[in-house]
Amino acid sequence: MDDGNATEPSPELAGLLPLSEGRPASGGRIHDSVVRTIGAWILGARYKPGDVLPREDDLTESLGVSRTSLREAVKVLCAKGLLEARPRVGVRVQERKHWRLLDPIVLGWHPDLTADRELIIGLIEARRIIEPAAAELAARRGTAEDFDAIETAYLGMERAIPYDLAACCESDLAFHRALVDASRNIVLRNLIGAVETALRASFLLTTSLMENQAKTLSVHKAVLESVRARDTAGARSAMNRLLDLAEEDYRRVA
Amino acid sequence: MDDGNATEPSPELAGLLPLSEGRPASGGRIHDSVVRTIGAWILGARYKPGDVLPREDDLTESLGVSRTSLREAVKVLCAKGLLEARPRVGVRVQERKHWRLLDPIVLGWHPDLTADRELIIGLIEARRIIEPAAAELAARRGTAEDFDAIETAYLGMERAIPYDLAACCESDLAFHRALVDASRNIVLRNLIGAVETALRASFLLTTSLMENQAKTLSVHKAVLESVRARDTAGARSAMNRLLDLAEEDYRRVA
Repeated sequence: MDDGNATEPSPELAGLLPLSEGRPASGGRIHDSVVRTIGAWILGARYKPGDVLPREDDLTESLGVSRTSLREAVKVLCAKGLLEARPRVGVRVQERKHWRLLDPIVLGWHPDLTADRELIIGLIEARRIIEPAAAELAARRGTAEDFDAIETAYLGMERAIPYDLAACCESDLAFHRALVDASRNIVLRNLIGAVETALRASFLLTTSLMENQAKTLSVHKAVLESVRARDTAGARSAMNRLLDLAEEDYRRVA
Repeated sequence: MDDGNATEPSPELAGLLPLSEGRPASGGRIHDSVVRTIGAWILGARYKPGDVLPREDDLTESLGVSRTSLREAVKVLCAKGLLEARPRVGVRVQERKHWRLLDPIVLGWHPDLTADRELIIGLIEARRIIEPAAAELAARRGTAEDFDAIETAYLGMERAIPYDLAACCESDLAFHRALVDASRNIVLRNLIGAVETALRASFLLTTSLMENQAKTLSVHKAVLESVRARDTAGARSAMNRLLDLAEEDYRRVA
């Protein structure tokens, strides 16, 4: 966790990350770029779980870096659950279940999120479990103020479509965050925080399609209206429809 | 996030934290103790959301620390979402929804988790949403190896009861982790990682009761058996029963 800011996110994701994640690294740029290179090798499946990385001497030579930089980079990648140093074996790629995949820094190393079916489909599946239940709780417990926050986010999406992709993603994210806030469950709120970067990246993948935009917008509105009407079943089913659209969109880009 | 290890967890929780969280702080001990003191004030509701902390001069005097230590501490608490520095207002306690409550360091400042109904009940509610669904997925997709991991954890609980409280908590945690692993959803796996310290703390609260132990053990066994039998509905309902017991236990200590 302390190594979290030792590297900067990749340029593609940097614009998507909250400011605090994008701050300049405390380590040097060489160290950062080694971390990012090896991180991308692993996330891009050039080295797969169980694979052993090349020997230190070969790596320092091929990457053109010092032994110290390499070791520091390996330490960061171990802290993120991607690598594991094994005596007499070398440095091995960990099983995927150990990867801190939701960590904004780790996601920033991903060379191609679109291709990572397991992550995107897993994210949609997790959302199918959590968000309809959160919508139901929001319909039951949300306050007028909570509903206003959801509406503000909805109006932001409406304004942003169809021209401003980044603003639309941010408002979409704010919509889901406000909805989970309205569930008044502090643990769910924290969990949504944990998937926020992955969510933002997945919204960016699919919003760029813009095919389902009008439909997406109207289903967001249906979620808002059912929650406000305290219609728990309606809120749950509108949220399920929203996730159906997300999955459809993803299958179109993947 | 980078401030995550700037303070050590409180002694009560330190033994419960994974090794990597318990490493010595990089900051000084004075700075740590200021963070922990103010953190406990906030988590223990001595200062509530919206409250403004006393002026800097008063705080440095009452805490007997330098202005630098105090400012560093406030920075850490802001990074964890507990405080917010407002020009012309001072340092204010943030709304609870902004707190990074699941962060092991933040939980470590909590003076009395048992009393934090919102957190514990929120945790059980979130578990009711996620774990029965995860159990169903585990019954559908788990491998023989996954089921062995769940069984190993179960046998660990059986061995630890009724004498070894800490070992029982660890095995209980391992049981739930293995179950979510068996769901083969990498996002759920990461989310369980995010609540792990809170889960451990809540297990410790209720396991110390040891009243429901025999029942708890038999329901864990029922979860294991239904998952292994690929009985999705049975796995879901056994997990729901497990959460009923957890809630009952908590209401008894709270």
